[in-house]
Amino acid sequence: MQEKLFARLQEIYPELVQFRRDLHMYPELSFKEENTAKKVADKLTSLGIEVRTGVGGMGVVGLLKGGKPGKTVALRADFDALPIQDEKDVEYKSRIPGVMHACGHDIHTSGLLGVAQVLSEFKDELPGNVVFLHQFAEELPPGGAKAMVEDGCLDGVDVVYGAHVASDFAVGKVGIANGYVTAAADSFEVVLYGKGGHGAYPHTAIDPIVLGSQVVMNLQQIASRQVDPLKQVVVSVCSFVGGGEAYNVIPDQVKLKGTVRTYDEEVRTAVEQSLKRIVEATCHAVGASCEVSYERGYPATWNNPEETAHVEAEVLRLFGEEGLLRMPPGMGGEDFAYYAQERPATFFMVGGRNPEIQATYPHHHPKFDVDERSMIQTGQVFIAALLAYQERHQNK
Amino acid sequence: MQEKLFARLQEIYPELVQFRRDLHMYPELSFKEENTAKKVADKLTSLGIEVRTGVGGMGVVGLLKGGKPGKTVALRADFDALPIQDEKDVEYKSRIPGVMHACGHDIHTSGLLGVAQVLSEFKDELPGNVVFLHQFAEELPPGGAKAMVEDGCLDGVDVVYGAHVASDFAVGKVGIANGYVTAAADSFEVVLYGKGGHGAYPHTAIDPIVLGSQVVMNLQQIASRQVDPLKQVVVSVCSFVGGGEAYNVIPDQVKLKGTVRTYDEEVRTAVEQSLKRIVEATCHAVGASCEVSYERGYPATWNNPEETAHVEAEVLRLFGEEGLLRMPPGMGGEDFAYYAQERPATFFMVGGRNPEIQATYPHHHPKFDVDERSMIQTGQVFIAALLAYQERHQNK
Amino acid sequence: MQEKLFARLQEIYPELVQFRRDLHMYPELSFKEENTAKKVADKLTSLGIEVRTGVGGMGVVGLLKGGKPGKTVALRADFDALPIQDEKDVEYKSRIPGVMHACGHDIHTSGLLGVAQVLSEFKDELPGNVVFLHQFAEELPPGGAKAMVEDGCLDGVDVVYGAHVASDFAVGKVGIANGYVTAAADSFEVVLYGKGGHGAYPHTAIDPIVLGSQVVMNLQQIASRQVDPLKQVVVSVCSFVGGGEAYNVIPDQVKLKGTVRTYDEEVRTAVEQSLKRIVEATCHAVGASCEVSYERGYPATWNNPEETAHVEAEVLRLFGEEGLLRMPPGMGGEDFAYYAQERPATFFMVGGRNPEIQATYPHHHPKFDVDERSMIQTGQVFIAALLAYQERHQNK
Amino acid sequence: MQEKLFARLQEIYPELVQFRRDLHMYPELSFKEENTAKKVADKLTSLGIEVRTGVGGMGVVGLLKGGKPGKTVALRADFDALPIQDEKDVEYKSRIPGVMHACGHDIHTSGLLGVAQVLSEFKDELPGNVVFLHQFAEELPPGGAKAMVEDGCLDGVDVVYGAHVASDFAVGKVGIANGYVTAAADSFEVVLYGKGGHGAYPHTAIDPIVLGSQVVMNLQQIASRQVDPLKQVVVSVCSFVGGGEAYNVIPDQVKLKGTVRTYDEEVRTAVEQSLKRIVEATCHAVGASCEVSYERGYPATWNNPEETAHVEAEVLRLFGEEGLLRMPPGMGGEDFAYYAQERPATFFMVGGRNPEIQATYPHHHPKFDVDERSMIQTGQVFIAALLAYQERHQNK
Repeated sequence: MQEKLFARLQEIYPELVQFRRDLHMYPELSFKEENTAKKVADKLTSLGIEVRTGVGGMGVVGLLKGGKPGKTVALRADFDALPIQDEKDVEYKSRIPGVMHACGHDIHTSGLLGVAQVLSEFKDELPGNVVFLHQFAEELPPGGAKAMVEDGCLDGVDVVYGAHVASDFAVGKVGIANGYVTAAADSFEVVLYGKGGHGAYPHTAIDPIVLGSQVVMNLQQIASRQVDPLKQVVVSVCSFVGGGEAYNVIPDQVKLKGTVRTYDEEVRTAVEQSLKRIVEATCHAVGASCEVSYERGYPATWNNPEETAHVEAEVLRLFGEEGLLRMPPGMGGEDFAYYAQERPATFFMVGGRNPEIQATYPHHHPKFDVDERSMIQTGQVFIAALLAYQERHQNK
Repeated sequence: MQEKLFARLQEIYPELVQFRRDLHMYPELSFKEENTAKKVADKLTSLGIEVRTGVGGMGVVGLLKGGKPGKTVALRADFDALPIQDEKDVEYKSRIPGVMHACGHDIHTSGLLGVAQVLSEFKDELPGNVVFLHQFAEELPPGGAKAMVEDGCLDGVDVVYGAHVASDFAVGKVGIANGYVTAAADSFEVVLYGKGGHGAYPHTAIDPIVLGSQVVMNLQQIASRQVDPLKQVVVSVCSFVGGGEAYNVIPDQVKLKGTVRTYDEEVRTAVEQSLKRIVEATCHAVGASCEVSYERGYPATWNNPEETAHVEAEVLRLFGEEGLLRMPPGMGGEDFAYYAQERPATFFMVGGRNPEIQATYPHHHPKFDVDERSMIQTGQVFIAALLAYQERHQNK
Repeated sequence: MQEKLFARLQEIYPELVQFRRDLHMYPELSFKEENTAKKVADKLTSLGIEVRTGVGGMGVVGLLKGGKPGKTVALRADFDALPIQDEKDVEYKSRIPGVMHACGHDIHTSGLLGVAQVLSEFKDELPGNVVFLHQFAEELPPGGAKAMVEDGCLDGVDVVYGAHVASDFAVGKVGIANGYVTAAADSFEVVLYGKGGHGAYPHTAIDPIVLGSQVVMNLQQIASRQVDPLKQVVVSVCSFVGGGEAYNVIPDQVKLKGTVRTYDEEVRTAVEQSLKRIVEATCHAVGASCEVSYERGYPATWNNPEETAHVEAEVLRLFGEEGLLRMPPGMGGEDFAYYAQERPATFFMVGGRNPEIQATYPHHHPKFDVDERSMIQTGQVFIAALLAYQERHQNK
Repeated sequence: MQEKLFARLQEIYPELVQFRRDLHMYPELSFKEENTAKKVADKLTSLGIEVRTGVGGMGVVGLLKGGKPGKTVALRADFDALPIQDEKDVEYKSRIPGVMHACGHDIHTSGLLGVAQVLSEFKDELPGNVVFLHQFAEELPPGGAKAMVEDGCLDGVDVVYGAHVASDFAVGKVGIANGYVTAAADSFEVVLYGKGGHGAYPHTAIDPIVLGSQVVMNLQQIASRQVDPLKQVVVSVCSFVGGGEAYNVIPDQVKLKGTVRTYDEEVRTAVEQSLKRIVEATCHAVGASCEVSYERGYPATWNNPEETAHVEAEVLRLFGEEGLLRMPPGMGGEDFAYYAQERPATFFMVGGRNPEIQATYPHHHPKFDVDERSMIQTGQVFIAALLAYQERHQNK
């Protein structure tokens, strides 16, 4: 059966590319994916798949009932985009100013719809059921996964598989990580309240830009001094905005935004406390005040060892040793973690790098792109993993 | 004659307030003061004053010929506004989002028009001529003064007086500074080019926000270590913008803007060199690149000792010792400097502070306001100074 | 035989304590351990053990030939002290100002001499040979191990065991780490050449203290931004000395010293390059110059998997599961690495923490101490490991 | 009379040089000038001058009674040295390791003794009295002047003159400053208490070196942001000492020392408060503690306008316009301020720069030296000023 499904997947590849490029040209920000959700739901419906929309907000859940008895396997793809200006020079470049699929979620969505299409065409032969989790808002905590789980998207589901395309290793390879595949991903926003004034009279102001710079510098010591070097931590200030067009107006505030990544829950708590303490004390030193909001984001995703081993075995079978990338733990954040907290689950990576088409930029880069053939590998691993899962559990 | 002029000035005060509030509600940014220039030109024209528009760009120059022989005295007021969102809670609050008369140029303009009105009503008795320099773009180098001078606005002019309202001392007082009344006001813009990436993988990026923070911190030493503590310097980074809404995208660049104030030309040159060297070396340390553009702005304004003494004498005569504020050198920048380079000139300050009407915020603050009666004092000093000047030179 | 040896070890414990306390009271700095080496050599000689002194410099190597055939097992203890002022309040406190056994090498030395004593008493029954590696200068690269290896201390040796006491876990436990047990430990020394002058005239000087502070702050980003958060790195500036007693003399230089710890050789190289670049560019920014000397210290110690598993098995047998601490990789540096590069080797930790006797301070702390009974566990593991090794290889 | 005195001063110049070089070779630190005080007292005594020793501690006060009626004029010279290692390559280089006359007090002392000698030789013709104030401990607050004043050294004195040699302008010139000739010179000492540990385990420590670097960086903003750029301030951290010889021991504390210079008392108070607040808050940010001791040093020295004008007139008479340097206010600290608080006083500078003999290094530099002929000019101005003073007051 796998051969038929794989062959069919190859046949419909041009349609997947077309669907992906449409998503790419009309990306939508997290929690605002109205049109995207509609496109996905329409496609699933057109395949004769039972569709529930508005799951947990903007989620779309498809249920394909196989013609043979079996377990229920969920496959997940996310479909939101990022607030980044597309700077690629391709025909399918984003048409929406300042919004871009710079992380490959369009690939995930189109790839999973390909799986839905081929499985639906052979549903009579299919053992068990397949749940298609088309998820909104992966990029922006609290994310869509938690709300979809709370809205019952895993009801009746036995196992969950998820995939992420990656521009940092070659198309054709599949990456598997044991243990932590993503980190606890927290975010913070700090507003530093100084006192505005004229740039020529700094002593009448409390300069929030110097203050913000001190805060950024002082935060570096969390990673460099305060956390056990054998444990993992990232504290990134990703946005520093103070002042505007005027050259000579000391602004009255500065806003910092950033992300914190950890695995260990004790480290996570210590970093949160230290960050707040550093910000507050640095403000206190110059008589400024501040607001620090620290939002705990997605927890770390722990790949279930058994399921991960099984998916790794399928990858080896399909692509051989050279097609398997054994990956270290990942520092990314993923709300796939919420599925993995509820069911045995594993999350794998699919290579999308291809220098020949300039698909080499890092994720979230304005020129990010991936080789679209990664949709094929994504679909193949999904299909192989679900068939193997059914087989394993039919034998029992 | 002074008494008649002063009495008439008081009578038209309500009109001046009305004119000022209209300017305040409809402020225009530097180099974009089309409507403002038109309002000023219309007003001058309606007073029977010869008007030349488009002087040096958007400048408006009025020429009032007195009925008696004498010298030609120029009086200057600027009329541009700032890119600041008005946060005052008053009826005449700015109607233009993000634009505000936060430095009192509306007061200058309306005050000078009051002078024009009363002088025009008594022009037959007026010795000599008066040139009204209504200047555009004082806030944004290269400013309007230089272009207006180059366009001949000082042709035939013997002396120039200028005034600035000030929220930091009480309405009713007039401030006089000997020597440097404003500083050389340079501006700089720095773009730091790092390498963007995902916030969870800082090692794949060159973080421009940490880099920008280092630059800001390292620039502090120019004032604290490198310039003779007996000489004056201000280096203010007034804008630091890197990243945007996303919490987890390391941006690929940061833009800094700021101002440098000095009196001494050697110090000015040394600061410019040190600033560039610090920025470039700090970038080099982490493999980043940068663009530094340093724009020399207005030179320092040197108040002519003789004219300044004469204006001070008039202020003492009009307002007494308690109405005179002997001021230290100023660190502000003013393109009045260009007039003072060409003709004997003096630039004085007029108090506008009044806690009863919340007119206490510093210049360029979103809640900046001044007591409108400062227009009266402005007008009185202009009138007294010009009459005294004519008298002084008639006797010769 | 183990029982006899262990029983004898217990009997001589008071002598070991006495020997250790003598070493503790008269510590000697690395490469200057003349008296210590003499004490050790005298003791070994008194036990009838063949002694070679001056090995590689100050090393002392004893050779005990067993009465039965077998392999040659080397056991290693280091004997140098640190430039730290002893602040403990105990009778055996260091008598040498500014020098202290603050890392427990006195324990190692005395513990290994205990093993030598009991083994020598039963040498007729002993299979194979035992080489006692009493090593100088572990604390100060290039260390003593490399020179001793080059001087032939491992000639004929089949396996090497080493131990380190630890104040951070309880006496009675033994810690075993698989893989990296110590890190590559590099050191650096930076001299920043500013320009001295009077503190009241900073502009006539180039202030090396502000410069040094910038360097320290900028170095933090190596760990926080530049190294993969999944890889390990420590950059510690441990000494910052500029200026002296005078309050008002800007010194002309500052000296920084520190240590870098890594496992991965690529990271090691990148850190060395980045450190130099940051120092040099930070100096360049202010027209200062510098000398950076970066000394590659001990490589990372890789515990031989087979030997480590065997020693772990002995520890489990002797002390049970509660007596075994499975340790993560270590960030410390150890020149035991050089033995491990030449022979199968393993390096284990012996708990010495005991709050009842204030033995809780970290290593290199002025109040560092450990429970002396750790000498017993050290000896027991050495003895059990060597007997097991001989047995294993006799059977072959 | 002036001619005879000047001629005699020239004749004894070789003796002055010899005396100065003896002082230079055997410098003594502040408050420890036992031998120096004895040499001075012996010399004065040998001249037949009444000597009081131990004045206020180590001070030596000579009283020369003139043969004619007149006022009492005090002349002051200080005689302490600095904790600096002499790095000059001259025969009279300091013989005392780490102690050096790096500020020219040896010149002052020998120069004043020359004055004492020539005046004593002509004392019968001398109007009034001369008090020779040979002061200890000028370099180290609380200094010697205050104690000497309290011990009555100014009893009966009408006016005080003081001089300081300067390596930054040419020998042969004399510098006169109106108003503030020296600043309020405060000192501070900060101990930052972190937590010591091993350099490989920064998370177990609180790193005082990173903390100290943050403190130094954050203190820069006092001058760059917090003080009115038109007012004067210097905050110099002149000593930063943490850690020692070991490369891998994070120390448990860091000690900072420095100086603060201001004129304005409000600025002085604000700087003291801000310094404390910055240090304390920066420590709080990382859970460290600190001790900040801020010692108010010498007040600013205000040159009496009348006396300054008279001395300036004498300088013009003696050396002409090219020999007079009109100086800006000085940022140095001087306990001459205490004399100036009690009596009309003026403090002038005497050029000592001479590139031909490498006398170009700044004060407090290890290679500092001055042209010894500056002793002649010092003596000439003292003599001329005191004669003029007597003449002025005799005529009244």
